[in-house]
Amino acid sequence: MIKLNEISTDPPKDLERDDIEKVTKKLVDRLGELQKVMQAERKHAVLVVMQGMDGSGKDGAVANVFEECHPSGLSVYSFKKPTEEEFAHDFLWRVHKQTPAKGMIQIFNRSHYEDILIQRVHGWIDEDKVNQRIDAINAFEKLLTFDNSTLIFKFYLHISYEQQKLELQERLDEADKHWKHNDNDWKEREHWDEYMRCYEDAMKRSELPWTIVPVDNRWYRNYIIAKTMVDAMEKLDMQYPPLERG
Amino acid sequence: MIKLNEISTDPPKDLERDDIEKVTKKLVDRLGELQKVMQAERKHAVLVVMQGMDGSGKDGAVANVFEECHPSGLSVYSFKKPTEEEFAHDFLWRVHKQTPAKGMIQIFNRSHYEDILIQRVHGWIDEDKVNQRIDAINAFEKLLTFDNSTLIFKFYLHISYEQQKLELQERLDEADKHWKHNDNDWKEREHWDEYMRCYEDAMKRSELPWTIVPVDNRWYRNYIIAKTMVDAMEKLDMQYPPLERG
Repeated sequence: MIKLNEISTDPPKDLERDDIEKVTKKLVDRLGELQKVMQAERKHAVLVVMQGMDGSGKDGAVANVFEECHPSGLSVYSFKKPTEEEFAHDFLWRVHKQTPAKGMIQIFNRSHYEDILIQRVHGWIDEDKVNQRIDAINAFEKLLTFDNSTLIFKFYLHISYEQQKLELQERLDEADKHWKHNDNDWKEREHWDEYMRCYEDAMKRSELPWTIVPVDNRWYRNYIIAKTMVDAMEKLDMQYPPLERG
Repeated sequence: MIKLNEISTDPPKDLERDDIEKVTKKLVDRLGELQKVMQAERKHAVLVVMQGMDGSGKDGAVANVFEECHPSGLSVYSFKKPTEEEFAHDFLWRVHKQTPAKGMIQIFNRSHYEDILIQRVHGWIDEDKVNQRIDAINAFEKLLTFDNSTLIFKFYLHISYEQQKLELQERLDEADKHWKHNDNDWKEREHWDEYMRCYEDAMKRSELPWTIVPVDNRWYRNYIIAKTMVDAMEKLDMQYPPLERG
């Protein structure tokens, strides 16, 4: 059983920021190379699920880790409150539409997991529906994996309760961050423990593994995400296709 | 185990065509009424999967059975050869997009089942993939059922080998049917036994039941489809919503 409050949101003490930043730069470059081969080969797809509490740095991670990827092979989709049409369908309907074609990296800023997180925390769905949705998510992720060779990364951006307060306060204090402020984020913060419980349960019952990313220091956050992706994508042994003529 | 060649493609001998046609007319009217309540209430959705060999009368059934439904609440989607973009996704990607919103009847002329029929008959996918796809289909249909209150009808239009020949020949002989002719239908006909085996297996391993519809006589075909749908939709106990003012 995962206990998030027992997992540090800081980097291991023996790591030096300068060293890690140098390694991360190389990993980010390599991720860009791997993305270009994948786009040329068109045998695999990559889906990156970014989940985390408000202020955990989902946007920042995307900006830093994927900066060497070619925009034509990379797409970010942010899941907001469902539209009326989306509400009139099952919860995976709008998600399935946004899954990556072969050759593409698709990043989900929030995802289908919100449907068993915010909805569960607020009691908008009962536990029967939570259980059915967890089964459906596992089947859905399996489908993407076996039927479209999709490599799925699920990153939980692990921020501390204290650090979140600093991040949200910055949005109130700094003019160029005002646009990110939302009173509602402070209200959701009151449900912190319940969110942690739901995240822990989602991770426990997920067939494909999650990566817990300590984010209180951005340099470590970027390193973990880049390293996790490069290590897994190297194993795909992707190749540029040979010349075809005529 | 279902053995399709042991199931008659004709109506039971004791039924009179005139009697059945009168009953069918009432069922078709009632289906139109039920559709209008469903559209007003917006609590349920209906998905109708029409599968069957070429010439089994999928288009004809749709034209006859749904003629009293309001077009704004009814939609037909015919699955053809996948596009390049569709091929670059899992097999359910293009299907999921077309599933009905609450309040709607969506008819699939062919469906996700083709991905374990024609593709299996021709050996374009291996048996591992067949098994994974069958699991994925069951999970998908369950998702539509529990998360969007979708009532799913799966009709197998059961035509005899001999009757199919007459139907395909008409497309060669009659000027107003030439547009339906396709040389390829005659080639697929050569794989008849293999198709039957794959249909039988799909039905056996499907969690939601199929309705086998004998179609060598159209009046009986229309009756069975209309009756199956009306009986199940009556049980939803749908109501027009009360007046809301202000």
